[in-house]
Amino acid sequence: MRISDLSRQSGVPVATIKFYLREGLLPPGNLTARNQAEYDETHLSRLRFTRILTNVGQLSLSSVRDVLAAVDDRDLSAQELCQVVNRALFAEHPTAVAASAGERVGVDTARARVDGFLDQLGWQVDPDAPGRVALAQALVGLQRLGWDGDVDMFVPYAGAARSLAIHERDSMPAGSAETVVARTVLLEVALVALGRIAREHYLAG
Amino acid sequence: MRISDLSRQSGVPVATIKFYLREGLLPPGNLTARNQAEYDETHLSRLRFTRILTNVGQLSLSSVRDVLAAVDDRDLSAQELCQVVNRALFAEHPTAVAASAGERVGVDTARARVDGFLDQLGWQVDPDAPGRVALAQALVGLQRLGWDGDVDMFVPYAGAARSLAIHERDSMPAGSAETVVARTVLLEVALVALGRIAREHYLAG
Repeated sequence: MRISDLSRQSGVPVATIKFYLREGLLPPGNLTARNQAEYDETHLSRLRFTRILTNVGQLSLSSVRDVLAAVDDRDLSAQELCQVVNRALFAEHPTAVAASAGERVGVDTARARVDGFLDQLGWQVDPDAPGRVALAQALVGLQRLGWDGDVDMFVPYAGAARSLAIHERDSMPAGSAETVVARTVLLEVALVALGRIAREHYLAG
Repeated sequence: MRISDLSRQSGVPVATIKFYLREGLLPPGNLTARNQAEYDETHLSRLRFTRILTNVGQLSLSSVRDVLAAVDDRDLSAQELCQVVNRALFAEHPTAVAASAGERVGVDTARARVDGFLDQLGWQVDPDAPGRVALAQALVGLQRLGWDGDVDMFVPYAGAARSLAIHERDSMPAGSAETVVARTVLLEVALVALGRIAREHYLAG
């Protein structure tokens, strides 16, 4: 198909497609004439995937590039691919809470608690996983609000995360790495949306 | 305390505090001299809350303003406050997936399915709740990836959202509206982080 068909079928403007081509996010089409390139289903699916990453996952171009490289790298294990995706997702949402001089210690202590908590759950993840820092900062924020609870306030959330992750793994489609990653991003958005809707409903009850 | 103490205790730079004062996000201190204002614990807590909204919730200044006004409005019910917060949170993360001409219909159909699904769950939320659109767009995205499933693919996610919302309501601290909203924002970040960590662990298994 031509670039105009690619645009119509994907809903992505031609100018954006040209930008992706220039940036190397979309592989070039097959040149059929001096100024004419032919695109196929792989371009359409890559384009849709890129749009999910940018629009739904809110990834920057640089993070999109990392994820696309990981998706194309057949030597990566599922876990390694997941690590790249997590890093990209966290990069766009730095969750740093402002810390005063005294509270710097708080973040370090919280980080140690989070590491211990993950060990207790038996979750084996990269020691540098950005989620560890995000959790530590959420913990400091919650404690600063006057919680006297500790990391165990995350227990119900960890339980929910565990069962959803197992469900996600067991219902994994026999698809490309693209499909698997796109599903992850979309399901995460759906979970957040459902959580907000549920809160609105149950708070009224 | 002086503005410099406010800065030290909150970890927020003086320049940022002055900006918040100019923008009306932080109420003025008590003038004790021509160029000297005194701040108290309410300023410190408002400042910390504002930082959670901007840094953790990633809200724009305009959304922060809406949330602060809602938090200060004692006539709002818990549900109304929740609606304002949800609107603010969704405003920063438009989840639109690109739609081709044909797919526009897809989003409308998906929206009807989502509305039916929420009815079935018995969740009574604003007909204009932005979460409905977010879910519909996630559904379209998932179907476009080749899912033949329907909105029922959200069932496990809705189950997790329900039990977390009930837990959140039942463990609600006797605190200010500020505290309640801040907790919501922090716990949502924690849930997302735990979900990503769990995925990294269970994908390897």
